Amino acid sequence: MLGFAERLVEAVKRAKTPLCVGIDPRWDQIPLVVRQPFGGAIPDSLEAVAFAYEIFCGRVLELVAGKVGVVKFQAAFFEQCGSSGFAALERLLNQSRALGLFTIQDGKRNDIASTATAYAEAAFGGPTFGGKRFGVDSIDAITVNPYLGTDAVEPFLQQARSYQGGIFILVRTSNPGAGLFQDLLCPEEKLYRHVAKMVESLNRGYLESCGYGDVGAVVGATYPAELAELRHLMPNTFFLVPGFGAQGASAGDLAGAFRQDGTGAVINSGRAITFAAKTDQCDWETQLELACEKAKGELAGVCAL
Amino acid sequence: MLGFAERLVEAVKRAKTPLCVGIDPRWDQIPLVVRQPFGGAIPDSLEAVAFAYEIFCGRVLELVAGKVGVVKFQAAFFEQCGSSGFAALERLLNQSRALGLFTIQDGKRNDIASTATAYAEAAFGGPTFGGKRFGVDSIDAITVNPYLGTDAVEPFLQQARSYQGGIFILVRTSNPGAGLFQDLLCPEEKLYRHVAKMVESLNRGYLESCGYGDVGAVVGATYPAELAELRHLMPNTFFLVPGFGAQGASAGDLAGAFRQDGTGAVINSGRAITFAAKTDQCDWETQLELACEKAKGELAGVCAL
Repeated sequence: MLGFAERLVEAVKRAKTPLCVGIDPRWDQIPLVVRQPFGGAIPDSLEAVAFAYEIFCGRVLELVAGKVGVVKFQAAFFEQCGSSGFAALERLLNQSRALGLFTIQDGKRNDIASTATAYAEAAFGGPTFGGKRFGVDSIDAITVNPYLGTDAVEPFLQQARSYQGGIFILVRTSNPGAGLFQDLLCPEEKLYRHVAKMVESLNRGYLESCGYGDVGAVVGATYPAELAELRHLMPNTFFLVPGFGAQGASAGDLAGAFRQDGTGAVINSGRAITFAAKTDQCDWETQLELACEKAKGELAGVCAL
Repeated sequence: MLGFAERLVEAVKRAKTPLCVGIDPRWDQIPLVVRQPFGGAIPDSLEAVAFAYEIFCGRVLELVAGKVGVVKFQAAFFEQCGSSGFAALERLLNQSRALGLFTIQDGKRNDIASTATAYAEAAFGGPTFGGKRFGVDSIDAITVNPYLGTDAVEPFLQQARSYQGGIFILVRTSNPGAGLFQDLLCPEEKLYRHVAKMVESLNRGYLESCGYGDVGAVVGATYPAELAELRHLMPNTFFLVPGFGAQGASAGDLAGAFRQDGTGAVINSGRAITFAAKTDQCDWETQLELACEKAKGELAGVCAL
């Protein structure tokens, strides 16, 4: 089996686009025709919402599988539906991998020692109880929050590495208030640069032939200057870039994210693609495909793969 | 209904102890007599593990309900078992509240904008779809990671406040490598002090009659000097203190966590209490109760309630 970075580069090159489709289901934006069996405008139950999410997202995966190489699931929208949402997410992650999509779960988990390992086992390879491993289909990558330090990140990485997976560590996020702590001068360099250096150092000794390691970085598209700066600071780190599309960043903001060969970043867009149609439009699948092609076209202008 | 801080103070005073029992199930440490129906040393399935967790933790809740006022569930150990673990956690949280325990869910969640709201709705009040609220039993508090800044914390707080709940923000964690980022000088004050000031400012205007607000702080017991320092820096903030017991901090390390009246902190201890017995000992319930009383006794020496 290829390593983490090689699979990611291969997924991007095969699809000829750095676009990553964000799977962020929101009940009120799902086409009514999909919601109809589950209550229409007002759902029958939380289980009905979870089921609708599974049907909708499953169809989205089928529609984008030939067009992009990478998808990112936002765990929060499934957790919002309780355990039935969690069960739907498990099945969708399996479907995504079966469709050949490089599959990222965005949960921003973080904890220490064996607690971090518990989270990591749920994503990679399955937990071990009584010396027996309960295999689950591994996903390709998860997102991890760095505030607790390297020793809290390492259990995630260790488990990921055992299954040719990887992690994306939050470095510079895309929200308006991202800089409150991330931009603090500590004491001469901003905090996010300290985090960036930790990420780059974790990749040392683990570079694959494509030139990247298995520790990626989340860097928001909404801050183009920082994005380009971090590309230089982190030559061996693959980026996961949120903020393109609904959050307001344009393709032009992304130019700094890539290496000259067009690799080095996947650009996430969720709502702008999956909810391209108005909820009462029955041709939502066509509109979703058009929105996906439009985003690919925009990115092709700044990323020559 | 009483406010968040008033309920927390009341729970601590009624039990006459700041002890919080950590509900952190680990298959290999659960008494064999409890595991027997689910496969014994090696579990039959992930569902069997989740069921054993539910039985064991449910009994732990019954045993400690008369002894302590507060419990903290570690989400990772339930997530480790997939959706069946998540379903077990949901039922246990309900049981905990029904037993009158102040109930904290430790998931260290973090995200931006409406994604943060999705997480928060799962904990407080239930989600709203199609204008209809799907009520779930609210818990009392969750833990939140601050790396993304105030605008990413606020959706959690807003939802918590709507249901008289609260949040505990990670300020200074208990792990050996906690200082890597948290102790960086930014540029004159350490990062964790900046986070502490954000927490304290979020409480401004929301102080309850007990003198605390609905935004708490996670501060590790393994760093006694910082604990005392933060008590002074954050006079209106209630602390959730991990690190006592299995992680190595002693009661003496905790003296700085409390106000003079003995309030101001709950001290978490998990494994040292719930897994006090060896796995082959049939009197595990007695040993658990003794360990709980022992911890209470130790804490009574540093906290006069």
